[in-house]
Amino acid sequence: MKTPNLAAWLPILQWGRHYNRDTLASDLVAAVIVTIMLIPQSLAYASLAGLPPEVGLYASIAPLVLYAIFGTSRVLAVGPVAVVSLMTAAAIGERAAAGSPEYWALAIALAFMSGAMLLVMGVLRLGFLANFLSHPVISGFITASALLIAVGQLKVILGVKADGHNFIDLAWQLIQQAGQIHWLTAAVGLGAVAFLFWARKSLKPLLVRLGLPARLADVLAKAGPVAGIALTAWLTWQFQWQAQGMKIVGTVPQGLPPLTLPTWNPALWKELAVPALLISVVGFVESVSVGQTLAAKRRQRLEPDRELVALGASNLGASFTGGFPVTGGFARSVVNFDAGAQTPAAGVFTAVGILLAALLLTPALYFVPQAMLAATIIVAVLSLADLSIFKRTWAYSKPDFAAVLATVAVTLTAGVESGLIAGVAVSLGLYLFKTSRPHIAEVGLVPGTEHFRNVLRYKVLVDPCILSLRVDESLYFANARSLEDRINAATADRPALRHVVLQCSAINDIDASALESLEAIDKRLADAGVTLHLSEVKGPVMDRLSKTEFMHELRGQVFLTQYQAWVALSSGIETSEPVARLLRQKAVA
Amino acid sequence: MKTPNLAAWLPILQWGRHYNRDTLASDLVAAVIVTIMLIPQSLAYASLAGLPPEVGLYASIAPLVLYAIFGTSRVLAVGPVAVVSLMTAAAIGERAAAGSPEYWALAIALAFMSGAMLLVMGVLRLGFLANFLSHPVISGFITASALLIAVGQLKVILGVKADGHNFIDLAWQLIQQAGQIHWLTAAVGLGAVAFLFWARKSLKPLLVRLGLPARLADVLAKAGPVAGIALTAWLTWQFQWQAQGMKIVGTVPQGLPPLTLPTWNPALWKELAVPALLISVVGFVESVSVGQTLAAKRRQRLEPDRELVALGASNLGASFTGGFPVTGGFARSVVNFDAGAQTPAAGVFTAVGILLAALLLTPALYFVPQAMLAATIIVAVLSLADLSIFKRTWAYSKPDFAAVLATVAVTLTAGVESGLIAGVAVSLGLYLFKTSRPHIAEVGLVPGTEHFRNVLRYKVLVDPCILSLRVDESLYFANARSLEDRINAATADRPALRHVVLQCSAINDIDASALESLEAIDKRLADAGVTLHLSEVKGPVMDRLSKTEFMHELRGQVFLTQYQAWVALSSGIETSEPVARLLRQKAVA
Repeated sequence: MKTPNLAAWLPILQWGRHYNRDTLASDLVAAVIVTIMLIPQSLAYASLAGLPPEVGLYASIAPLVLYAIFGTSRVLAVGPVAVVSLMTAAAIGERAAAGSPEYWALAIALAFMSGAMLLVMGVLRLGFLANFLSHPVISGFITASALLIAVGQLKVILGVKADGHNFIDLAWQLIQQAGQIHWLTAAVGLGAVAFLFWARKSLKPLLVRLGLPARLADVLAKAGPVAGIALTAWLTWQFQWQAQGMKIVGTVPQGLPPLTLPTWNPALWKELAVPALLISVVGFVESVSVGQTLAAKRRQRLEPDRELVALGASNLGASFTGGFPVTGGFARSVVNFDAGAQTPAAGVFTAVGILLAALLLTPALYFVPQAMLAATIIVAVLSLADLSIFKRTWAYSKPDFAAVLATVAVTLTAGVESGLIAGVAVSLGLYLFKTSRPHIAEVGLVPGTEHFRNVLRYKVLVDPCILSLRVDESLYFANARSLEDRINAATADRPALRHVVLQCSAINDIDASALESLEAIDKRLADAGVTLHLSEVKGPVMDRLSKTEFMHELRGQVFLTQYQAWVALSSGIETSEPVARLLRQKAVA
Repeated sequence: MKTPNLAAWLPILQWGRHYNRDTLASDLVAAVIVTIMLIPQSLAYASLAGLPPEVGLYASIAPLVLYAIFGTSRVLAVGPVAVVSLMTAAAIGERAAAGSPEYWALAIALAFMSGAMLLVMGVLRLGFLANFLSHPVISGFITASALLIAVGQLKVILGVKADGHNFIDLAWQLIQQAGQIHWLTAAVGLGAVAFLFWARKSLKPLLVRLGLPARLADVLAKAGPVAGIALTAWLTWQFQWQAQGMKIVGTVPQGLPPLTLPTWNPALWKELAVPALLISVVGFVESVSVGQTLAAKRRQRLEPDRELVALGASNLGASFTGGFPVTGGFARSVVNFDAGAQTPAAGVFTAVGILLAALLLTPALYFVPQAMLAATIIVAVLSLADLSIFKRTWAYSKPDFAAVLATVAVTLTAGVESGLIAGVAVSLGLYLFKTSRPHIAEVGLVPGTEHFRNVLRYKVLVDPCILSLRVDESLYFANARSLEDRINAATADRPALRHVVLQCSAINDIDASALESLEAIDKRLADAGVTLHLSEVKGPVMDRLSKTEFMHELRGQVFLTQYQAWVALSSGIETSEPVARLLRQKAVA
């Protein structure tokens, strides 16, 4: 390859040179299917974000093309997604009235900021920051967002008014408004929800039973939402339901996406900085996890830092063409993959399809009931909600459960931004708390071997003159004092003690605070006539320790293995009674 | 013991019952020495905090008595200290004019809040929170605070006006004011600094050479600052220096400490909450580290959670008797220890001494030059500054160096509160960053042994069909993806690969995110025809893993040792060429 660097940053140069008629055919078929699926979704997510429906189409054109140029995933489809749309509404909902030009301008500014942040993070290779969102926090956040979106759309389906900003408010208002339900709207909306669930689950098998080829049945099943939109629009026009108070989409401007510029307003940017950052990170995490799952299936690789650049370019593209924040969507990317898309060119073809829809199809959207779009959203987001995350984290890891609980509870009660921040804070806080109280085991020799094991778990040999401790954590400032306390307590208990051996096999790092603690431990033990030794110190740790004063002043030895320490230091041997000890330990605690 | 719980919370019940004439004599001698030392210090630290000098005396009476009742250290002396006084001035300096009654009321409120916080932290056993202040951050913070205090006092010594809030401001103003120096004040102040440094270092040896007994020489040397105060006050009175523009202490009210109540003002409390918390934590950390160092010398133990209660009671005591935030001081505790204090009763006797000073001595303070007090402060704080922390952390640990640098730079430029927060944020951030990029070593068999070592460091045996990886960190959300990336990259490189063995000897925990990553790794490897195995999984980790779906679905095995995995899986063996590999690795990177 003549241009490795350029090709690395512009993956299009790699797949573009192998492009041929076969890949073209595959990409075209996939593009048709994804376009059919994207039209209703784009309209729906724009209205979820509080924007006019055509903005959803605009946000699905330029971003797809830009991702095709810069993205490293072959099949990721970029555009408006549910959670990011909800976060957009939350970020700007209190700063302008939904549907107003100011509101739209704020959405454009948010896309611009998010794009710029993603680009900068990509260039600075800060993709690892997304790792601080743990899987349980993401699951909890997406689940809570889905519930929040679903209850918010329920008001559209029932034709009532409610404008709370949290789940409890919204649910309570819906209950209070039960008398005001617009029954025609509710019938259409609930019917649409039922139809969409059915189409998703049973339409394809039905069509196959009716004798259609599986491939065609699949395409037709994907067209379910479009058929639903067409049918309800036709019925509305036929029976003039809008005259009976049912809300419809109304006039949608026809034409190319407008060229827009984000407002130059540093004060506003400061206000939107945190929401824009959160939208960027959530969008990136969602996009990368979808992309990686799909890439692995074909043994391809995703480059997270380049994905940041690609998503940044996509969002900047959205902001210059009247769009709002976008990212790689789960459902559409899976459909693209299943439909056989081979290269990002499929995304370009999809963009052309959506562009045609924006140019030609918008008049046909006039009679589409808003409740139909709400039904599309509800069915889409409920498939994202995963309540089993509570059960799974409870069974496996209580700290993860606490992080999920905090994320879900705060998202539902205080909103998406607070929920995400709470989740990250709780998961980091509990991780730090856990590492600040390391597991420190007293170990003894397994008879007949050279292995050492926890005296509380195994029947092992111990020597009253030697205390062998294994610290199961790197030593750093937050846990250095724990070790001091443990050794202080142990020496106070054992009058016969002459040697303390720290088995360092699980210590991957010792920071400056922990080094000072080791110095303090050594001095205190020396005062008490006890010698401190180390064993099984890892290479990189030993490299650094060997340059310190501590190692020069250490009166004890550094043994290669714990067994060598035992052989060198042992005098009288006893057998530990693990069960008795365990019971005594519990009685004391 | 009949009342173990009560005695645990009231250590006075333990040492009180063994009190006899010998301990009384030791405590009395120590109390006299500490009282002599405390009088000038208390006056000086009160003026450092922006308060009238008598407030320093008030803050050294009730807190000492309360600490004697609740404290677990036998020798800790509680009262105003330099860093906490500076933090007090920083917290309330912008809310009221120094010296005004409002200012004093704010100081009392701060002592009350700090006391309440410490008490609550003690009861909830939150002492471990202080562990998140790393040693380098504390050293850096104290050093920067000392520099800030010293440059602030320099203006008093030179008799000029300057009121910047950061080091650069203050230093710059001092330079600008060079023409306004009040030479008489400067002569007295600089003379006092020189005398105090000399007295600290050379007075005792001189007195011994003059034939005094060592013990008496020691007491007289400790009285150096008092002698300096007496001398400068006498000279000022004699030559009426105050008439020539030298600032003196002036009228100091004579009498018992007043009974005061903190203002009931929730809005104010909210504003002071963060400074009060930082003062509490810094005071606690300073106090406990002094206490633990001294306790260890006599093989006594300090209970950090009970120290919180004792310091909380001391600060509440200060707030009810017209004082300001206090903590266990380094210099006075060491003096108390060296002077032979045996029990906290020495603190009570010191309190009586200070009380007598407040009742009888204050008229004698009228002519004390303010520059003399400033000299006392400068000499005290410069002994706290430790610039070697930069060199030591740079040599041992770059992240610790970065934390020190951030702490010092932000403290000097933006103030004590921001500096402390910056230090904690940087040290936690870098710790998390480090653990998010774990050291993952490919290991091979050391010929003739059962040990496995890094292929880049040792000449070891490797098998092209087996990839043996040792992860030197617990697996959690922030580093789970690193492992995925590493294994993805390794499988792409090795066509012959059939087995991946994760040696888990350094993995102390696997959280839910990492578990999902392991599931994803297993699935991806399976797709590529490679089997994932584990070895040397620790007991607690295995206990939890065994309940998961991952372990049921894992197609590979869990080996007790890496060697057993090698024996079971190996087919063809090669010898690694560590040097060549290392070079190649470097050339690629």
